[in-house]
Amino acid sequence: DNRPTIASADGRLRASLGAQIQYDVGGAIQGDRSAGAPQLNSFGENLRRGRLLLGFRYDDLLLNVTPEFGGSPDGSPTLYEASLNWTPVRPLTLTLGYYKPYYGLADSMSSNDFLFLERPSIMEIARNIVAGDSRSSVGGRWAANRWFVAGYLTGDAYGSNGTTQATNGQTGFVGRMAGRPWTDPDTDLHLGLTGSHAFDLRRDTSGQSLRLRDRPEWRAGDASTRLIDTGSLPADSASTWGPEIGLRWRNFLLQGEYHQINVGQASAGAAPRPDLTFEGGYVEASWVITGEPRRYSTSSAAFGRPNPARPFSLRDGGWGAWEVMARYSVVDLNDEVTRGRAATATGGVFGGRQEVVGLGLSWYPTSFLRFMLDWNIVHVDRLNAAGTQQIGDRVHTLGLRTQMAF
Amino acid sequence: DNRPTIASADGRLRASLGAQIQYDVGGAIQGDRSAGAPQLNSFGENLRRGRLLLGFRYDDLLLNVTPEFGGSPDGSPTLYEASLNWTPVRPLTLTLGYYKPYYGLADSMSSNDFLFLERPSIMEIARNIVAGDSRSSVGGRWAANRWFVAGYLTGDAYGSNGTTQATNGQTGFVGRMAGRPWTDPDTDLHLGLTGSHAFDLRRDTSGQSLRLRDRPEWRAGDASTRLIDTGSLPADSASTWGPEIGLRWRNFLLQGEYHQINVGQASAGAAPRPDLTFEGGYVEASWVITGEPRRYSTSSAAFGRPNPARPFSLRDGGWGAWEVMARYSVVDLNDEVTRGRAATATGGVFGGRQEVVGLGLSWYPTSFLRFMLDWNIVHVDRLNAAGTQQIGDRVHTLGLRTQMAF
Amino acid sequence: DNRPTIASADGRLRASLGAQIQYDVGGAIQGDRSAGAPQLNSFGENLRRGRLLLGFRYDDLLLNVTPEFGGSPDGSPTLYEASLNWTPVRPLTLTLGYYKPYYGLADSMSSNDFLFLERPSIMEIARNIVAGDSRSSVGGRWAANRWFVAGYLTGDAYGSNGTTQATNGQTGFVGRMAGRPWTDPDTDLHLGLTGSHAFDLRRDTSGQSLRLRDRPEWRAGDASTRLIDTGSLPADSASTWGPEIGLRWRNFLLQGEYHQINVGQASAGAAPRPDLTFEGGYVEASWVITGEPRRYSTSSAAFGRPNPARPFSLRDGGWGAWEVMARYSVVDLNDEVTRGRAATATGGVFGGRQEVVGLGLSWYPTSFLRFMLDWNIVHVDRLNAAGTQQIGDRVHTLGLRTQMAF
Repeated sequence: DNRPTIASADGRLRASLGAQIQYDVGGAIQGDRSAGAPQLNSFGENLRRGRLLLGFRYDDLLLNVTPEFGGSPDGSPTLYEASLNWTPVRPLTLTLGYYKPYYGLADSMSSNDFLFLERPSIMEIARNIVAGDSRSSVGGRWAANRWFVAGYLTGDAYGSNGTTQATNGQTGFVGRMAGRPWTDPDTDLHLGLTGSHAFDLRRDTSGQSLRLRDRPEWRAGDASTRLIDTGSLPADSASTWGPEIGLRWRNFLLQGEYHQINVGQASAGAAPRPDLTFEGGYVEASWVITGEPRRYSTSSAAFGRPNPARPFSLRDGGWGAWEVMARYSVVDLNDEVTRGRAATATGGVFGGRQEVVGLGLSWYPTSFLRFMLDWNIVHVDRLNAAGTQQIGDRVHTLGLRTQMAF
Repeated sequence: DNRPTIASADGRLRASLGAQIQYDVGGAIQGDRSAGAPQLNSFGENLRRGRLLLGFRYDDLLLNVTPEFGGSPDGSPTLYEASLNWTPVRPLTLTLGYYKPYYGLADSMSSNDFLFLERPSIMEIARNIVAGDSRSSVGGRWAANRWFVAGYLTGDAYGSNGTTQATNGQTGFVGRMAGRPWTDPDTDLHLGLTGSHAFDLRRDTSGQSLRLRDRPEWRAGDASTRLIDTGSLPADSASTWGPEIGLRWRNFLLQGEYHQINVGQASAGAAPRPDLTFEGGYVEASWVITGEPRRYSTSSAAFGRPNPARPFSLRDGGWGAWEVMARYSVVDLNDEVTRGRAATATGGVFGGRQEVVGLGLSWYPTSFLRFMLDWNIVHVDRLNAAGTQQIGDRVHTLGLRTQMAF
Repeated sequence: DNRPTIASADGRLRASLGAQIQYDVGGAIQGDRSAGAPQLNSFGENLRRGRLLLGFRYDDLLLNVTPEFGGSPDGSPTLYEASLNWTPVRPLTLTLGYYKPYYGLADSMSSNDFLFLERPSIMEIARNIVAGDSRSSVGGRWAANRWFVAGYLTGDAYGSNGTTQATNGQTGFVGRMAGRPWTDPDTDLHLGLTGSHAFDLRRDTSGQSLRLRDRPEWRAGDASTRLIDTGSLPADSASTWGPEIGLRWRNFLLQGEYHQINVGQASAGAAPRPDLTFEGGYVEASWVITGEPRRYSTSSAAFGRPNPARPFSLRDGGWGAWEVMARYSVVDLNDEVTRGRAATATGGVFGGRQEVVGLGLSWYPTSFLRFMLDWNIVHVDRLNAAGTQQIGDRVHTLGLRTQMAF
């Protein structure tokens, strides 16, 4: 950690100042749009993340306060984190407040280190049920060299309890276990298991509900439009789980997850309300052409980004680090439905099935600067609620991210 | 003041960085809810205050800028303070901008030092008419060792003048005088008098009006619901006043205020529009079990929080400071009304009468960290506008605050 | 630059902290308001600018992050700037992100150095088409001692792409050239030319459009009401251009601009949609009574504010710097219309013609503190859409700004 830091007069209280900026420019090519499919904006810009990282440390206590000026879309400043961390003995850290609890491999990885612009849809959807950004949480993690265990009781996210929105908050649990059964200077093998359970979903005046949806793993030109969406499901409870695997060999990285989401629908009259199961997964790979490894971070049990051996310099002739990436990601939000039959008849939902093939290129001129170009080929197969019309589409997306992070 | 501070190259401009975080978790037990009484959320979390304190000092000038990421409820970042302070001679400070002018004992006390989670309702209601947070003000204070005098001309609060909301701003005056007729190392006797007057209330397209209301001295699980509320009163002017008293003896503190709010209703046709008087008060006590005193702050003419003699430490065996608190608070927003007769007939209002008995426990592991558990027994006696139905209720609230402040 | 600065442990990353506060109090005197003319609030306060300036520098890279807590009106925190600046060779700076690209003389001048509270209306209207605050931009400037050239490709402004607001973003180009053909210790002659072109205007579900409007060069008491306004014009493209001139001789400054806005209206059926041309200009003068010059800033090709030779001090008897200012400003948003004929008949617009005569007085007690009193006499000549009724008005405005900027 190399952030600028200042101390109080007595030297015990230390404040540090950092920033994370991700500025995206991008566009979508939708070709002949299917009738009924949503239209994506064809070009735009967005500040995906714009965070100021303030840390206040006093002995074994750390207060993190992180205003967020980016978003999806940007324009509404918010709070990413306000958390109190206590480290009574290493490597145990207990944390309280609004923050992102550890959940899965894709979400434990820092957003500065992502292989692609956005998390795989299945992980983005799953994490936002009980975990995710700015989640009210209390819990802890044990982050040793070879083992990682984390568990949190969670509630609602920052800003959820606006006037008359909720009549009762959510409660849930998030857990993650991971290990490195094999590690040597050239190799890291990561295995993990993660899961969550919502004991009680948020209740508002129209009852308890859950909505699963995501954008097409791209928000650069259009941060609002989703191609897959279950709509609001009346639900009593939900749980998620999935295994994680990752393998680094020198400057190659291969990682992936399978994930399942189970939703207990609330019964209502005579209409069928079966329990629903949605699933998905992804596999992604990175090759750092210039040879730097994506080192394993034991504090988060996830892989980091390459640190350029020869930073870019007009004078010294360095070119920084270069990396190519590829990903296949799939999520299926259809369940308990049959083509040609209305979703209401079976109690299921045509949320849509989304496949994304992504290709990417990264340039790291220095350790804190990154440019990232992503090309996604998105294919969505989705029927309307009557089960009679295709409202999915095939879309190409391009996104260029400029990232600066200290 | 022990905040981390940095100086400019010439050493004359100094910037300091601090933070105040109050993260609340709580719930309400409403029992058999009265028909017509509002429903409180039964469980939730809220960032009550989440402030970054930036100070810029140059000789005898001080600029305070304080972004606020908490709220009631949280979710909408705002500005708590932007004020320019000039100290031409000690102990005189002249201040201009958006800030909280000194008003009453309960509002002059720092929110880090409160005996309970929230201010007594009568003081919360009264301060928000002409004073309160982020109030546009110009004025000054003379804060000597035994005497304190403050006076401010005030306008609207930050963010009041949204598009088409106001057609004319508010103007008012706030004053406070306080003294310590007796002080010795064991004892502080505080006496004070505070008051305010709104010359002109905010006018919008539907005329001038005033609304008096408050939450049940608890916002931890539900930051929106009020059990007492006058609704919008057409009003020409308003004034408030009340005496303050406080007595510290060693590690005991007893303090209280009586307060009155007078509203000049605007006449409209033949309907009766009598002037209205609302009143209330509170008395609260603290006993710091571990013996530390709540020292008197001359700069604010109010008592502070205990500073633990033996901070919590696993190594040294310190347990910090522990404190128990109790409070009785009452406010009556009924005036010029009779049971069984409609408020419109008499020109009065059934705003409701609220009594709160509070019991609390505080733990201060170190001087900047505090955990605070409050149990409120709230009783509201309130009739509907027709004067025929009881819409008050009896509620128990619990709140646990985690506070970190530098 | 004299901002407090801290360095990281390795000394290469340096963070600086600054602030800009402009707190305005003001009122409008509208006399006998014309029937149909908008009503201005008669008194109020507003935080016009409330910015925290965070800079992170690493070798030849600079990241600027500037949260904004002021506004017109205040109350909605936003982001003024998040930009990445690279200086490969002096005096070239390449910039990417959300920021204000250089445009015209009035907009290149720092808002701390303005002669009046607000920019001349013609420049405010013109800059907000393709340039202006928080504009998504990529480009660069060459800021030499005698020559200044800047060019930027721009998109939308921060926060424009809210849910379903846009279906396609805007693209445009902004350029500015300026020089000092004459400079000696007593004299600076500035000549410049600026222009912009929107290739593609923002498209939302109701098509592409453009709205030109401004407040009466005063927002102190009423930050919302505009007296001139074209309404939403269906438009395909827009361009702007104008020359700049400025002349400083010792402690006198005279500067002005002429400006033209051309709007290509989108045709729709048989209704006439002629291209529209709007124009305006201003001339303003300053005399620093105490003798300090408004020095030329080569980095922005604009004049700065006076730096008091003898800062205010009760001890040393200094009185700071004093300045008087005057301005005449005009903008005409009427085009292709005739008195007595409806705008729809000709395809033009009665946007209104506004003339403002401003007189001002500034006091600079120190280099970072400023008090500014402005009196504007505003005259608007505007017909309703039918061309039959005068809805313009004559208004006097007063505004007092307190400004603190590091």
